[in-house]
Amino acid sequence: MIKTDILIIGAGPTGLFAVFEAGLLKLKCHLIDALPQAGGQCSEIYPKKPIYDIPGFPEVLAGDLVDNLMEQIKPFQPGFTLGERAETIERLADDSFVITTTKGTKHNAPIVAIAGGLGSFEPRKPKLENLDFFEDNGVAYIIKDPEVYRDKKVLIAGGGDSALDWSIFLADVAAEVTLIHRRNEFRGALDSVEKVQELKNAGNINLITPAEVVELKGENSLESVVVQKTDTKENIEVQVDNFIPLFGLSPKLGPIGDWGLEIEKNAIKVDNTLDYQTNIPGIYAIGDVNTYPGKLKLILCGFHEATLMCQSAYQRIFPDKKYVMKYTTVGGVTGFDGSKKEAPKAVVKTID
Amino acid sequence: MIKTDILIIGAGPTGLFAVFEAGLLKLKCHLIDALPQAGGQCSEIYPKKPIYDIPGFPEVLAGDLVDNLMEQIKPFQPGFTLGERAETIERLADDSFVITTTKGTKHNAPIVAIAGGLGSFEPRKPKLENLDFFEDNGVAYIIKDPEVYRDKKVLIAGGGDSALDWSIFLADVAAEVTLIHRRNEFRGALDSVEKVQELKNAGNINLITPAEVVELKGENSLESVVVQKTDTKENIEVQVDNFIPLFGLSPKLGPIGDWGLEIEKNAIKVDNTLDYQTNIPGIYAIGDVNTYPGKLKLILCGFHEATLMCQSAYQRIFPDKKYVMKYTTVGGVTGFDGSKKEAPKAVVKTID
Ligand SMILES: Cc1cc2nc3c(=O)[nH]c(=O)nc-3n(C[C@H](O)[C@H](O)[C@H](O)COP(=O)(O)OP(=O)(O)OC[C@H]3O[C@@H](n4cnc5c(N)ncnc54)[C@H](O)[C@@H]3O)c2cc1C
Ligand SMILES: Cc1cc2nc3c(=O)[nH]c(=O)nc-3n(C[C@H](O)[C@H](O)[C@H](O)COP(=O)(O)OP(=O)(O)OC[C@H]3O[C@@H](n4cnc5c(N)ncnc54)[C@H](O)[C@@H]3O)c2cc1C
Repeated sequence: MIKTDILIIGAGPTGLFAVFEAGLLKLKCHLIDALPQAGGQCSEIYPKKPIYDIPGFPEVLAGDLVDNLMEQIKPFQPGFTLGERAETIERLADDSFVITTTKGTKHNAPIVAIAGGLGSFEPRKPKLENLDFFEDNGVAYIIKDPEVYRDKKVLIAGGGDSALDWSIFLADVAAEVTLIHRRNEFRGALDSVEKVQELKNAGNINLITPAEVVELKGENSLESVVVQKTDTKENIEVQVDNFIPLFGLSPKLGPIGDWGLEIEKNAIKVDNTLDYQTNIPGIYAIGDVNTYPGKLKLILCGFHEATLMCQSAYQRIFPDKKYVMKYTTVGGVTGFDGSKKEAPKAVVKTID
Repeated sequence: MIKTDILIIGAGPTGLFAVFEAGLLKLKCHLIDALPQAGGQCSEIYPKKPIYDIPGFPEVLAGDLVDNLMEQIKPFQPGFTLGERAETIERLADDSFVITTTKGTKHNAPIVAIAGGLGSFEPRKPKLENLDFFEDNGVAYIIKDPEVYRDKKVLIAGGGDSALDWSIFLADVAAEVTLIHRRNEFRGALDSVEKVQELKNAGNINLITPAEVVELKGENSLESVVVQKTDTKENIEVQVDNFIPLFGLSPKLGPIGDWGLEIEKNAIKVDNTLDYQTNIPGIYAIGDVNTYPGKLKLILCGFHEATLMCQSAYQRIFPDKKYVMKYTTVGGVTGFDGSKKEAPKAVVKTID
């Protein structure tokens, strides 16, 4: 059982910054995210796009913002359970919570902060018989570790940035990369489209368009897929070890919707007059996942909500302690790893 | 009369960021600040100190944060009335407000956003007869334009960073710089203390410690000051054109306290359940200057408050328009100066 002070569901920008604010209060955090990496929408949907409304950044790439946040929270050594969806919640006799993931990992904490954004990202799947059977058996919707595909024959389906970027990346790693798409046109960064064209011309990527997979074959694991040209209806059987449909991820509030929390418009109602607590004491909801009058689904709002939430969590954990806020500039930042950042001190010195 | 959409009192980080959020809504802003420069506490008190809790900045100098904010709001061409304190407010028949400064400058807008921080910064003054008479007549507490002191004889009093830094700076500009302080010890950055020691040794700064000014002399403007050595009680008359006591600035809520706003603990009560509006419709209070249950006087909180405030201001100005928020990443940022920032668009392109 993983134990911590604040269990954060969702490692998007809001959840990440909560680690920092909790750390200033000497509270430890552990994050659970269904995605294999931190950063939420910023990392999954638009890592290479600029954001213009993060205060103090005239322009910052979403992926860089996430990197900066990871760097900022490093001293507070957060734990991560990645690639697992938080599924069930239970309340123990001591009033603390146990959260169990899809893979059975159990986490225990007195405070739960749901920073689940628009929900856990779930892949859009093609409609194919036996798809379940081949999942984790040749079929994957998210590439967690590209090394898995070293020297394998891989078929990627999709027409967006993910399909393009992974085709380019795996062209160097896999034995064979085939890219198929329902249309002839791809939609993505100009660079990526041009690079795929080059790799195709050089014979490093096989391209079949317009086409879709209509059948999966294999005894124990995937051995081949049947690709149908959508214009000519011709069927082509391609020998592959892996089939990776990259049709995008769509967020689903999912199991959190059944935790007894007040839900409105697919978001969790919170007390915005004080601390962004939900109707269940000890469970907070911050960032895109919550709703209240005037709510804006913006990153900078999640930062503020995370900060007030941590103050309230501190009071819940230590009802008798009076916390006096210190500016970071004045008090510095003391990490759990023993690191200490602080402003250079003024000297008091005679001039004679 | 200066006219704008949102009149912001206080050009600290909160007021500055409000310009950006207002700009996204195509609302123009004008800022009034008692200080000669933008940035509020960050610029006035600790420009060279690092802040560690601005989200996305593991570390940022307060002065750099202000520079970044100025850069971020540049496309929205805010107006500035600097070095003047907002003094009185009046409501016109059309429900808009007129704000007049200490110097009589008048500003008119349908919305007022008070982002006054801890109040307008007022200099701590020495207790001296005739001080009033010499103000702007040889005596100044804030250096707005160092060129005023070119080839003048200047006496600076104070023992902190401002006194040290301006002595160093003016040593190059003025004809003569005398630095006095009540103690022998100065308190400031090691660099600055050492530099003053050097300049003193080289004869570029006259140092008199421990000492204080006990009398100001002059017919129409300042001609000399009498400095008393506090240890020996010896009096020294120094011929000077300018006397600049740099004893720090202390913030005072000041005249805003008499505008009929609900005040609690020296701060303005606002409706944090919605939009940070005060008890007077059309007047908002954001950042350090406001108070509500759970309020934290942090920069990142001011950013959030400014953002929600602008949405509400928009609704007040355009009660019939429905504003649909667009992410900056998706919609880009269109400045009033005709500039346009936007994320590189995806291409749709055939690969063959
Ligand atoms: C294209 C695009 C452009 C945008 N541009 C801007 C912009 O310019 N400015 C701006 O402020 N905002 C912008 N946004 C919105 C911004 O990305 C979100 O406000 C922000 O990501 C919200 O952060 P969050 O941490 O609250 O949630 P998210 O980033 O959504 O992260 C939530 C995380 O929680 C995880 N999760 C949810 N449920 C579970 C569960 N049960 N178990 C495990 N994990 C779970 C999800 O997998 C996800 O990783 C944009 C969004 C998009 C899509
Ligand atoms: C040493 C120090 C360290 C700090 N460290 C941190 C930190 O690490 N993190 C953090 O988040 N915060 C920190 N703070 C606090 C932070 O600086 C404030 O929260 C922030 O400056 C508030 O911004 P603001 O724009 O609301 O107000 P301010 O920065 O106070 O600006 C208000 C402005 O309004 C002007 N004004 C007021 N009344 C009038 C009037 N009637 N007419 C004209 N002008 C007026 C003032 O002159 C001032 O310039 C620190 C503060 C100090 C002093």
